[in-house]
Amino acid sequence: MDKIKILLSEKDIPRRWYNVKVDLPFSVPAPIDPVTKEPVRIDKGKSVFCGSLLEQEESLERWIAIPEPVIKALSIWRPTPLRRAVYLEKVLKTKCRIYYKDESVASAGSFKQNTAVAQAYYNKKEGITCLTTETGAGQWGSALSFACNLFGLKCRVYMVRLSYELKPFRRTLMRLWGAEVIPSPSKRTVYGRKILKKTPNTTGSIGISASEAVEDAFVHKNTKYAAASLFDYVNLHQTVIGLETKKQLKLIGEKPDYLIGCVGGGSNFAGLVFPFLRDRLKGSNMRMIAVEPASCPSLTKGAYIYDFADAGKFSSLQKMYTLGHSFVPPPVHTTGLRYHGCSPLISLLYNKKIIEARAYHQIEVLTAGVLFAKAERILPAPETTHAIKAAIDIAKSTKKSKCIVINFSGHGFFDLAAYEKFLDKKLKNYAYPIAEVKRAIKELLQLQP
Amino acid sequence: MDKIKILLSEKDIPRRWYNVKVDLPFSVPAPIDPVTKEPVRIDKGKSVFCGSLLEQEESLERWIAIPEPVIKALSIWRPTPLRRAVYLEKVLKTKCRIYYKDESVASAGSFKQNTAVAQAYYNKKEGITCLTTETGAGQWGSALSFACNLFGLKCRVYMVRLSYELKPFRRTLMRLWGAEVIPSPSKRTVYGRKILKKTPNTTGSIGISASEAVEDAFVHKNTKYAAASLFDYVNLHQTVIGLETKKQLKLIGEKPDYLIGCVGGGSNFAGLVFPFLRDRLKGSNMRMIAVEPASCPSLTKGAYIYDFADAGKFSSLQKMYTLGHSFVPPPVHTTGLRYHGCSPLISLLYNKKIIEARAYHQIEVLTAGVLFAKAERILPAPETTHAIKAAIDIAKSTKKSKCIVINFSGHGFFDLAAYEKFLDKKLKNYAYPIAEVKRAIKELLQLQP
Repeated sequence: MDKIKILLSEKDIPRRWYNVKVDLPFSVPAPIDPVTKEPVRIDKGKSVFCGSLLEQEESLERWIAIPEPVIKALSIWRPTPLRRAVYLEKVLKTKCRIYYKDESVASAGSFKQNTAVAQAYYNKKEGITCLTTETGAGQWGSALSFACNLFGLKCRVYMVRLSYELKPFRRTLMRLWGAEVIPSPSKRTVYGRKILKKTPNTTGSIGISASEAVEDAFVHKNTKYAAASLFDYVNLHQTVIGLETKKQLKLIGEKPDYLIGCVGGGSNFAGLVFPFLRDRLKGSNMRMIAVEPASCPSLTKGAYIYDFADAGKFSSLQKMYTLGHSFVPPPVHTTGLRYHGCSPLISLLYNKKIIEARAYHQIEVLTAGVLFAKAERILPAPETTHAIKAAIDIAKSTKKSKCIVINFSGHGFFDLAAYEKFLDKKLKNYAYPIAEVKRAIKELLQLQP
Repeated sequence: MDKIKILLSEKDIPRRWYNVKVDLPFSVPAPIDPVTKEPVRIDKGKSVFCGSLLEQEESLERWIAIPEPVIKALSIWRPTPLRRAVYLEKVLKTKCRIYYKDESVASAGSFKQNTAVAQAYYNKKEGITCLTTETGAGQWGSALSFACNLFGLKCRVYMVRLSYELKPFRRTLMRLWGAEVIPSPSKRTVYGRKILKKTPNTTGSIGISASEAVEDAFVHKNTKYAAASLFDYVNLHQTVIGLETKKQLKLIGEKPDYLIGCVGGGSNFAGLVFPFLRDRLKGSNMRMIAVEPASCPSLTKGAYIYDFADAGKFSSLQKMYTLGHSFVPPPVHTTGLRYHGCSPLISLLYNKKIIEARAYHQIEVLTAGVLFAKAERILPAPETTHAIKAAIDIAKSTKKSKCIVINFSGHGFFDLAAYEKFLDKKLKNYAYPIAEVKRAIKELLQLQP
């Protein structure tokens, strides 16, 4: 019988993060100041961001030691299993071997905890007492609540109002771990009040929530903002995923032909893929595929251009594939992937054609998710189904025996309402608003350096 | 650093189930026919139950080989981790070592899968094409749906109407795995129609749903009923829990002073405890504690007497601690523990004072559950919080360094609505209906042989 779970032991948890930037054969565009159009000085972010993390953002070390308390925290759920999808392979009648790195075993059910514990640790070490952040469906908010609880920090989460009202379960999980959860836009911040005045009935957006969380961190003592994605240090912390996967594949003598992850901001994709990039850059023909929702297609339909990271324009300008910071995505169920841009590092790799991207609609990804759940009996988060759909398409399109590895970024136990609507055929697909995006990108042209 | 996860490898999955009856120094009262008052002949159940399982029910082998396809099925999620609750110990400032056997890692989130895959396998082997069952909150229904999907059987689940309407998430999970889920009482069965005629607005009960599932199996071809609990073979299949736990404790040189599990029908408690009973019977002073809801206290307040297993009185009479088969528990949130009786084997052990029992109210167990979730960052199912509460009480009441082992029977990701009500202080405790129970037990006296 084929090995269906490839397990590591606690001593196999990576001791170092891998900093991919050092190995790239081209430089990464620096964030720039929206007013001066000059590269942003690193210490400018210190009123909102943790100093150690900003230093990590600029690090030129290839390997960065993971502090012992972070390793101990990771060991609560890591190493995660690499599973072979033998049952799915059988259903697909494919010769391909499909593996999935199961990040869903984390306490809050997703990969997000990998960076959450690192960020909580560094902030705690610098004397910070509270972290703020934004969350959509709540994967990131619950991961950060978990981490703050672990390191003894307060946590304030601005949750997109629509999710706050319709998806109370991750909200309750956050409260159980001691976080304060605030529906956003809220009256807590100047920016929130401004939005509420203009559009009192708005259901909110990730960009709005992020602006509120940043403002909150800015005005409160000993309070910093924690970022779910986008930043290089977030991608760095996620490399534990790929480092473990490499070790697991080596144990069974496999080399991946395809590495696949879903992308919103992009950190779960980065976490799986970056540790394999050295081989890719040395000429291996391994293919790396980022999968995004067709309703929020920053890589496949956005412009590679400088843009703000948040709707309130508090951030510096980042060079990335973007649909414009004012983008409000259609009400699809893959709420974790509704961000207007994609991490600058991943954007650069895509621009240089080192990685590929594809976009799918929600009905086709959830169909793939249900097929997976029926075959493998593990329920993927709607975000994760994007990666699964791409893997299934690849496996179906080849007669060869390829090795496909998916990042199984999270489980769908908190997303059963979306699956129920799908089963009851109450979901529809949404095109992205092309005209709006065109206009937003045209406006962005004036911001460019 | 203390080892916080004690992991086994796939080859450590037990190859044999342990049949505790062989080692008991007293005989187990046989089920009797309600009319003749004679012991029931085993083949009488064959119209509703799988033959191999009925044979297992009567087996006098100490060790029963687990069929290879069942081991393969178990290996999807087994062996499960034994975790040390180091963070909880710290919060409690106890010298005790508290371990929990984490059955929540199963695909459907609870220990129920252990027997579900065995029952599905034996039925499939006998040419059965469909299994029926009842479910409350859905832990058992989703486990059986998983198993039927795995072995290619149809599955019809009669779900207590209240849960069907208020707790749609496990219902959706069952549908994802291909089961048909029917709110009960339903118009599908004679018994369901009878109940609906008498009480059209009833919210249902486990006993009613069980009667419908049994009737459905009885009238349909190639269809059998699958039992969640109560039967000796269910307890038998659950012994993989205790067998693995024994091995894990041995690995770290521990011997338990306390073994604790929650009880409804009792199979998760049996699964943990039975493999340790041989030592207990040889004179070890290991204590085994069954924990039940104070609102449904079959062991601590029921009578040890013959009673029906279901509200519709389709079953034979079982000697067990019972509150009467017509018992409808108050609307507490620990829906998995709302059964009127307790497995005959566990009832006998309790009657012989080999195991102990205690009962707690829902607010105190959920308080313990939240304390556990904050400390260990794993969210227990409301059922599981009963065992946790007992462990915490024991740890707090001793200055000695005892070894306490809990069966962590399932996670609470599908029960966040209950936790939300708890956090919002919207829950209250319920006494059990003493007068009703007294009357029901008095009526039962006429049924006794």
